[in-house]
Amino acid sequence: MEPAVDDPIGAAVDVLGDRWMLLVLRDIAFSDRRHFRALLTGSAEGIASNILADRLKRLLDAGLLSRGGIVVRGQRARFSLTEAGIRTVPILRALEIWGRDWRSPGTDADEHGGRALRAADHVPAEQLMAELRLRHLDAPDPGA
Amino acid sequence: MEPAVDDPIGAAVDVLGDRWMLLVLRDIAFSDRRHFRALLTGSAEGIASNILADRLKRLLDAGLLSRGGIVVRGQRARFSLTEAGIRTVPILRALEIWGRDWRSPGTDADEHGGRALRAADHVPAEQLMAELRLRHLDAPDPGA
Repeated sequence: MEPAVDDPIGAAVDVLGDRWMLLVLRDIAFSDRRHFRALLTGSAEGIASNILADRLKRLLDAGLLSRGGIVVRGQRARFSLTEAGIRTVPILRALEIWGRDWRSPGTDADEHGGRALRAADHVPAEQLMAELRLRHLDAPDPGA
Repeated sequence: MEPAVDDPIGAAVDVLGDRWMLLVLRDIAFSDRRHFRALLTGSAEGIASNILADRLKRLLDAGLLSRGGIVVRGQRARFSLTEAGIRTVPILRALEIWGRDWRSPGTDADEHGGRALRAADHVPAEQLMAELRLRHLDAPDPGA
């Protein structure tokens, strides 16, 4: 598929317009799953191992993840978010707010967004990104 | 695919975790394309007519769009965003910022986000959503 050169939304969805890309990023960023097996067994959606391997490769190729640590048959690598990966947090947060207020069962959202702000912004995106930078960009790798 | 009941990001990506869903929403919200033909011929990504028809149906079924106006062989319907559809604007805006600063050609983003704020927030999301409410929820339908 050919990206529209000058459109930033088109450029973004070429990478992120995929259910599993977003769910893998969510599990790494919000649930601190850093290894293939943790991502596989912890997946609430029951991701298949070939799908997970493919999406991890695409995230690495797109520069949203980096890989370190011991590699034994591809299973023991420890994945870290890059700055470009950390910068997807506002997208995930926007999805979280929309999902909670416009998709969750029993939702009774008002039209002014007050509940969304109270519910989903418990940790501001900027603060979460700062914490992720410490853990993913600067922290020593215990498996290295 | 079975959504994870309690996870709002999972609930959101069940609907929006698809390249074409996001691109069609973008063209309706940001380029004011309200008819099938305008969405088809104006698509920078060259969406195929069967893909467009499928995604419009999914957006209608999911309650993000409503349909009004004259219907002649399904081509003359005028689509409007619902409140749930308008509420995807912050997601599209977050994708726009990320695409501009982390995906566009020749990008040299700094790490502090200042450029992202200056570049993409020319119209705040809240203001755009207010404008969309006037045009999509309250405006009389000239085709009705």
